[in-house]
Amino acid sequence: MILGQVVGTVVATRKSETLVGQKLLVLKPLYTPAKEEVFVAVDTVGAGVGETVLVALGSGARLALHKEQAPIDAAIVGIVDTVKISGSE
Amino acid sequence: MILGQVVGTVVATRKSETLVGQKLLVLKPLYTPAKEEVFVAVDTVGAGVGETVLVALGSGARLALHKEQAPIDAAIVGIVDTVKISGSE
Amino acid sequence: MILGQVVGTVVATRKSETLVGQKLLVLKPLYTPAKEEVFVAVDTVGAGVGETVLVALGSGARLALHKEQAPIDAAIVGIVDTVKISGSE
Amino acid sequence: MILGQVVGTVVATRKSETLVGQKLLVLKPLYTPAKEEVFVAVDTVGAGVGETVLVALGSGARLALHKEQAPIDAAIVGIVDTVKISGSE
Amino acid sequence: MILGQVVGTVVATRKSETLVGQKLLVLKPLYTPAKEEVFVAVDTVGAGVGETVLVALGSGARLALHKEQAPIDAAIVGIVDTVKISGSE
Repeated sequence: MILGQVVGTVVATRKSETLVGQKLLVLKPLYTPAKEEVFVAVDTVGAGVGETVLVALGSGARLALHKEQAPIDAAIVGIVDTVKISGSE
Repeated sequence: MILGQVVGTVVATRKSETLVGQKLLVLKPLYTPAKEEVFVAVDTVGAGVGETVLVALGSGARLALHKEQAPIDAAIVGIVDTVKISGSE
Repeated sequence: MILGQVVGTVVATRKSETLVGQKLLVLKPLYTPAKEEVFVAVDTVGAGVGETVLVALGSGARLALHKEQAPIDAAIVGIVDTVKISGSE
Repeated sequence: MILGQVVGTVVATRKSETLVGQKLLVLKPLYTPAKEEVFVAVDTVGAGVGETVLVALGSGARLALHKEQAPIDAAIVGIVDTVKISGSE
Repeated sequence: MILGQVVGTVVATRKSETLVGQKLLVLKPLYTPAKEEVFVAVDTVGAGVGETVLVALGSGARLALHKEQAPIDAAIVGIVDTVKISGSE
């Protein structure tokens, strides 16, 4: 999984029917050198803009959504309270 | 999922039979530093050149197509109306 | 899927038995900045050196081969006639 | 699989229910140029901060956990005693 | 699949039980610009240090091992006799 920060939202009226009703959030990966890259994940835990979240990628994302037929490849599976990295605070 | 812009089309006469009749579009990832990289996705929502789209990668792409035997790894699953990234308009 | 150019061949006498009889081609990704990187794909459409091809990656590759037990992660699924990218010819 | 070093821990109170009770560790990939990038893996072997570990990515990670419905994409599957790379000690 | 060179070995006493008895080799990808990056693959064809090998990544790796429950994401599936890249010898 990766750590990300929720930085925005996506609205898509025309979409795959299994995505209807899903909250699509824009995320920026944290702790990576690729600071400009963003991606879109389905929220499964009630995350909001500004929060640090745990993101499952690939087929694991569909398990979080309990909709194994949804065409998704990224899901927010946790809201992070603290990250402790040794050598940092 | 990632955000992309449709930038072109691909014609392939000789191809895997499960791809026959599928619209193959060329996409450029958006909001990434890798601006030159393009890839090919199957369209499932009626997207056209110039539109911003939501793309599912990997095994999730086949779910969008409702053809789980199709040898694909990327599908357009939504046409994006708006992307709102905090700190930008 | 990605676009690639067939640039070579691989011969491997000792290999996984499900790969016996498969044509293994070396490909260079097209339209990416990573110009030096090459990879190996199983040919399913009769491609040859020099041709531009459409490549499925991951579990989708096995579907093209109709051998779901083959340990592969890349398959050539189409021979590209034309790629049209807007803003280019 | 990749080699990584455990560099920290993650606490996430609100999370996908299949993740409850799992130990989430922060890892830094070893032997890669991308030294700043970190990711999160579920521990299945009792690893601790500072240890060098073997990490399975993607759907393989869920097999290590014996919870195939858990929305994860990385698991620590071994604690490395020695890595011997030819040309080095 | 990718081409790699076997550059070393990994010993991990504490590991996922489905990995017990598997030979874990360290590989360096060939023909890529990322020369420093190494990864670990399970050997299924009797490869040794110094050899050029064909590596299957992702879920395809488990098929080579004939242990679909093993938490692995990379397997050596062939020992390469020759690679011929056009424009080179």
